[in-house]
Amino acid sequence: MSERTTTADAADVEQVRVLAEAARTASRRLALLSRAEKDAALLALADALDAATDEVVEANARDLARGREHGMPESLQDRLRLDAARVAAVASAVRDIAALPDPVGEVVRGSTLANGLQIRQVRVPMGVVGMIYEARPNVTVDAAALGLKSGNAVLLRGGSAAADTNRALVGVLRRALEAHGLPADAVGLLEGGHGAVHALMTARGLVDLLIPRGGADLIEAVVTGSTVPVIETGVGNCHVYVDARADLDKALAIAVNAKTHRPSVCNAAESLLVHRDVADAFLPKALAALSAEGVALHTDAASGTRADAAGVRHDTATDEHFATEFHGLEMSVGVVDDLDAALAHIRRFGSGHTEAIVTEDRAAARRFTAEVDAAAVMVNASTRFTDGGEFGFGAEIGISTQKLHARGPMALPELTTTKWVVEGDGQVRV
Amino acid sequence: MSERTTTADAADVEQVRVLAEAARTASRRLALLSRAEKDAALLALADALDAATDEVVEANARDLARGREHGMPESLQDRLRLDAARVAAVASAVRDIAALPDPVGEVVRGSTLANGLQIRQVRVPMGVVGMIYEARPNVTVDAAALGLKSGNAVLLRGGSAAADTNRALVGVLRRALEAHGLPADAVGLLEGGHGAVHALMTARGLVDLLIPRGGADLIEAVVTGSTVPVIETGVGNCHVYVDARADLDKALAIAVNAKTHRPSVCNAAESLLVHRDVADAFLPKALAALSAEGVALHTDAASGTRADAAGVRHDTATDEHFATEFHGLEMSVGVVDDLDAALAHIRRFGSGHTEAIVTEDRAAARRFTAEVDAAAVMVNASTRFTDGGEFGFGAEIGISTQKLHARGPMALPELTTTKWVVEGDGQVRV
Repeated sequence: MSERTTTADAADVEQVRVLAEAARTASRRLALLSRAEKDAALLALADALDAATDEVVEANARDLARGREHGMPESLQDRLRLDAARVAAVASAVRDIAALPDPVGEVVRGSTLANGLQIRQVRVPMGVVGMIYEARPNVTVDAAALGLKSGNAVLLRGGSAAADTNRALVGVLRRALEAHGLPADAVGLLEGGHGAVHALMTARGLVDLLIPRGGADLIEAVVTGSTVPVIETGVGNCHVYVDARADLDKALAIAVNAKTHRPSVCNAAESLLVHRDVADAFLPKALAALSAEGVALHTDAASGTRADAAGVRHDTATDEHFATEFHGLEMSVGVVDDLDAALAHIRRFGSGHTEAIVTEDRAAARRFTAEVDAAAVMVNASTRFTDGGEFGFGAEIGISTQKLHARGPMALPELTTTKWVVEGDGQVRV
Repeated sequence: MSERTTTADAADVEQVRVLAEAARTASRRLALLSRAEKDAALLALADALDAATDEVVEANARDLARGREHGMPESLQDRLRLDAARVAAVASAVRDIAALPDPVGEVVRGSTLANGLQIRQVRVPMGVVGMIYEARPNVTVDAAALGLKSGNAVLLRGGSAAADTNRALVGVLRRALEAHGLPADAVGLLEGGHGAVHALMTARGLVDLLIPRGGADLIEAVVTGSTVPVIETGVGNCHVYVDARADLDKALAIAVNAKTHRPSVCNAAESLLVHRDVADAFLPKALAALSAEGVALHTDAASGTRADAAGVRHDTATDEHFATEFHGLEMSVGVVDDLDAALAHIRRFGSGHTEAIVTEDRAAARRFTAEVDAAAVMVNASTRFTDGGEFGFGAEIGISTQKLHARGPMALPELTTTKWVVEGDGQVRV
């Protein structure tokens, strides 16, 4: 991505203006829908997706063929692929969203003032939410469905690799909305190159919120190049710290799970830190287990000695390794002198996503949870639990690693803002 | 301001880096303080301000003298002025902040998951909060005190007109923090010109949040030029809409109060919209009352006719008038055909701050509160009530007109973020 240096030409700006104004008009209608109306529309969208399975799979086949021509790696092809079963899963996810509670209208707080004014802070939709994302085409439907449920219109800009698939999906959704008596412009698709993306990023006043989902470069480009408010998502350089008083069986299970359960995602662990008092007891076993799972190990001097003792292959960890989110079966490993050293290491290299301590020591757990500055802090649990589904939100639009508005898994309430409603009987300031 | 085109030189960037890293270190200490420790520190700061009254007043006299030399208008001199009584009021506001509840540590929500994991979302400080503001020097102390109470370090950049005053105030605060055993770097003062401001705006990763307070140009420059997350504050083009079924006595009192109670501030009304059915009954009286209070009236054709009938001076309202936040005794006036026309007018010209309807019609009130997209919507109450003090927050750091993170009056909770704490017993994802 090079949005930072690309500028939008007049046609890009015009495309975004037209799309965003249509979305704004649609959003005013969506904001007033009852939960029942929104849920009925979502079920209609799910049925329409099921009915359009062949059309979607064919469009997807064109994207896949183009990808293969351009040498797309098999792992990316797999992310891009939509077969009939996956289309059914996407439709089913829309039905799940219909079953979730409606965040709109929730009274967050309220009171009656001394002068008799009744004030209440009520959840309302954001308005127009933009999403910029990469290959996985299920995001197109998820974002549209979460947007509709939270009363927002969405402007979608998926990766060019999924262009045909996204066009087909958005076409199905728009036709189904219209057939259901709702504005098709509740779901808009932004076409075009980097100039169009730049125009979206700078459409301040037209777009209320922009959520980038994808690799670190995409997110960095959107965060630094946007004048529209952005929620930064997803970069996770997560650590598992095994304390002096850890239960080493739990520590082994957690380290292996955090690294290997699904290594490509942001809540997978990238670094293992071990207190020196348990390095001899823990590391040979842990490194052997990780290696047996296919994890390439980058070790500091003290952990390298233990790897050698256990006969485990490894190479020397650099600062670069400790700073890297591997997105795969690699892990950096270090031995620390104490909890303070672990905290300092995490401060230096962590990305503020998820950090875990394994310990039976209450004081150490309390210090770790108080002092680590991250969206989620785990005690005796795998980093993989930082997830909207696991937390019971029923859906997830991304994991925020920034501090403004939302931090950690974002679901329906995070797609809303609030409005103060003040009701009186003629009160004036005195 | 011209931050948008100014770039920071190496010295500016270095100044911000040093200040922000010192503030970060201090913020880690602040984040762990108990409420009792923070309150004791705030009382010590208030005492130190009282004791330093002469020093502060002298520094302020130098700013005032420089202002007069450069032809500063009397109204701005008044905003800048700190006499002994005002210093006492500033110190007293710090004691008021000590008396407010501590937002840090509040459990926002939590649950126990099916697998036994206990999760809770806890309020924690942002870390380092930057403030960019204009003349009024009480903001310097307010921001420092609200920052300390919410566990944040603050980096302050006041207007150059108040440079000596701000230097004196920050000096007093820093010495008092140190004497109290807390890090002086909890309060930092950024010196230098626009390059320094630009360096602060682009100190992403070093500064967690930036709050601009001041005129529309300042806010626009900060919002569009920052890569640090910003909360947009304060631009208010507020309307009072008098509906067909308004109680016209209430409407008169509200229109006059909203316009004249304190016309320089953001929650003052700038436009009066009147339903045509009550234009004859309401406008002659209302325009005469406003005019008697010294309000210059910009009228559309239909309201101009009523002004003439009442013998009230007025000129012709342009779109420019309807789009302007006057910050003074001026008001644009229009007659609308119905509620829809009023809503359309507000959509076109409103700034999303505060909008008021005066009506006894329940359906009209419900539509207005549902359909107006603003931080605050009033029914039968003056727009002047959108205020942290009036809402019972006890303090206010600004009024957000954006939708992300905070909307409306911002107080202590809005200076915090959250952290998910997850406690388990060895749980892993299956």
